Amino acid sequence: MVKDHPDAKLFPHATGAADKMVKAHQKEEPLKLYSGWFCPFVQRVLLVLLEKKIPFQYIEVNPYHKPESLLSLNPRGLVPTLEYENKPLYESTVVCEFLEDAYPSSMPKLLPSDPYEKARVRIWIDFVTSRIIPSFHRFLQYQPKSSSDPGLEKVRSDFHHQLAQFTQEMDSTGPYFLGSEASLIDLVIAPWAVRTWVFDHFKGGLNLPQGEKWVERWSKWLSAVEKRESVVNTISERDKYLPIYQRYADDTAQSELAKATREGKGVP
Amino acid sequence: MVKDHPDAKLFPHATGAADKMVKAHQKEEPLKLYSGWFCPFVQRVLLVLLEKKIPFQYIEVNPYHKPESLLSLNPRGLVPTLEYENKPLYESTVVCEFLEDAYPSSMPKLLPSDPYEKARVRIWIDFVTSRIIPSFHRFLQYQPKSSSDPGLEKVRSDFHHQLAQFTQEMDSTGPYFLGSEASLIDLVIAPWAVRTWVFDHFKGGLNLPQGEKWVERWSKWLSAVEKRESVVNTISERDKYLPIYQRYADDTAQSELAKATREGKGVP
Repeated sequence: MVKDHPDAKLFPHATGAADKMVKAHQKEEPLKLYSGWFCPFVQRVLLVLLEKKIPFQYIEVNPYHKPESLLSLNPRGLVPTLEYENKPLYESTVVCEFLEDAYPSSMPKLLPSDPYEKARVRIWIDFVTSRIIPSFHRFLQYQPKSSSDPGLEKVRSDFHHQLAQFTQEMDSTGPYFLGSEASLIDLVIAPWAVRTWVFDHFKGGLNLPQGEKWVERWSKWLSAVEKRESVVNTISERDKYLPIYQRYADDTAQSELAKATREGKGVP
Repeated sequence: MVKDHPDAKLFPHATGAADKMVKAHQKEEPLKLYSGWFCPFVQRVLLVLLEKKIPFQYIEVNPYHKPESLLSLNPRGLVPTLEYENKPLYESTVVCEFLEDAYPSSMPKLLPSDPYEKARVRIWIDFVTSRIIPSFHRFLQYQPKSSSDPGLEKVRSDFHHQLAQFTQEMDSTGPYFLGSEASLIDLVIAPWAVRTWVFDHFKGGLNLPQGEKWVERWSKWLSAVEKRESVVNTISERDKYLPIYQRYADDTAQSELAKATREGKGVP
């Protein structure tokens, strides 16, 4: 069965800058991250680990031959799974907050210390997971029923609408969401933000409404985020992503998120 | 339009023990909770406020005549919305964690101080929102297509499966999830746990598989939770819930969650 699984052809490991980062994190460490080079949820956790310079071991998981060491920690075998003192943690945003709590002396702090500002960041982290990511996937996986089907415009403009709502919450100067310094909210959306090129490749363009104020602010934000070392060092060669995103664009991908999107659901 | 809205007939305020609690929280306070007496997400926040004895003002929101004071804080006008220093917070689990952060001297502490245990609690809080609540609503809103439709058994046993997974993570002695003391994980699921009587009323029974070990543990947990003062004091008279749950059971309810369930989606 596994051999016939159409996602089984995905390229097996990181390339480019991400490959260098992976090679620099092969040494045995008590903190281990079970990863998939392609996975944006894994990238969230990597960004936090790299920003805070927390030592960790990167373990690439072949999703069709999951290592026993992972399955014994997390029977569903999902990535990212973090191994901490031989115990498992998963759910990418939970893992990110855990790293902030468990390594209090690792700088920079990624959450505001003020309780109200921290709660506001968590509201918008939730917005990324519950609104932006599902909208990204409805757009990417949309299959026009005919050449005059207005549905593609609808999913495209819904995605714009979600980005606009998010962007309107940003500090007006920036460049980051909270101001001059990057924080967790920038890192949890970055993996999808840096993948919006897929819409230009597959869906006739992201086509942000240039001239609108929020688009200007979004572009300023994205340009700052794309240049961060942690972001640069967690991105593989674009041509390795292409065949995988092709399957999303054709709506034949078999990941949990792809299937949930096909069924009209959110992030599983 | 509002007059024709079929949910508009819902009973307008809390009754029974919850009415006493509401009356005891009418005094003007800087911390205000915009509430709906019926809403389980509001009940989550109330449980935290009452457990920690944080002073607050309860404001009942008529969902068809939302007060300007609420709309100016939160344009979507959703409950629960917390007003803190004239600023809004929403998303029930974010609000619960905020109260824990913002009132550090209010006892009891509802989250473990150990970062790993805290993260584990957050994983299971997420499980309640992303798995248990959608499963509760798929069961409640299921409409059998015929008298031999096996679908009702399917949604019932899926709900059992979710509860079993949750229960298997509990401390073996209890009675609470983490042991002898209640914590946030108990409070975020309690509003749905104390509403499972609706299945006996509308869907031929909750029908937990008696004799299974997890059912025994779940029953012990539920019995402890149902007796807590905070829980008792946030429940209205059962006959006031009935006409509202009738509309869920008939799958004609118009709440955001009811509509999302109908579309096969999760908690919106």
